[in-house]
Amino acid sequence: MIIKHYTQIKAARFDGDLVKGVDGRVLIGKADGAKNFCMRMFELAPEGFSPRHSHEWEHEIFVYSGSGAVFKDGDWVSLKPGNAVFIPGNEEHQMKNTGEMPFVFVCLIPDGPPEL
Amino acid sequence: MIIKHYTQIKAARFDGDLVKGVDGRVLIGKADGAKNFCMRMFELAPEGFSPRHSHEWEHEIFVYSGSGAVFKDGDWVSLKPGNAVFIPGNEEHQMKNTGEMPFVFVCLIPDGPPEL
Repeated sequence: MIIKHYTQIKAARFDGDLVKGVDGRVLIGKADGAKNFCMRMFELAPEGFSPRHSHEWEHEIFVYSGSGAVFKDGDWVSLKPGNAVFIPGNEEHQMKNTGEMPFVFVCLIPDGPPEL
Repeated sequence: MIIKHYTQIKAARFDGDLVKGVDGRVLIGKADGAKNFCMRMFELAPEGFSPRHSHEWEHEIFVYSGSGAVFKDGDWVSLKPGNAVFIPGNEEHQMKNTGEMPFVFVCLIPDGPPEL
């Protein structure tokens, strides 16, 4: 059994034209022995956003803290702590922070794609 | 894309000799189209606990709120919001609430076993 706290894990920072203010962490992945699916955490700074994209694999998301929104079928849908979001493979999506505090969520992917 | 809030999902209650005060919910599962892994949420009432058991499949857990502990190698290890726990298959485990508020965590499993 492996027990961590996300604040103990060094984040990779993503900043550019298509992604802004995003800290990504692998909470549970292959290095821990997890073979079937991977738990990552993303922390979006105020005004931060993830890239708008689609890919073959699905996401299972759980919102931990802050206020944000997800781009769904051309609209932004608000998200708050306690929301679960299932994004099937090949569906366009994007996340953004809409608040003054970090917007933090876990996002799981199946085995196969890069962990971060 | 499917967006829910956990409070909108009817919980199944587990109470007995081996499990006490546990509300279980499937947040993302086969009914949503999720084929590879399943996100459940468990809410343990004060003094509540899950069964002490082991099984072939792994757990990937993220603690959302409250105070609790996990039984690991004969000892109880404290958990708080932001903890991630990887429990490999066939490793004995149990969760309990150690606080005055509900102890709430998401717990993901691979495809195969019952969702709840």
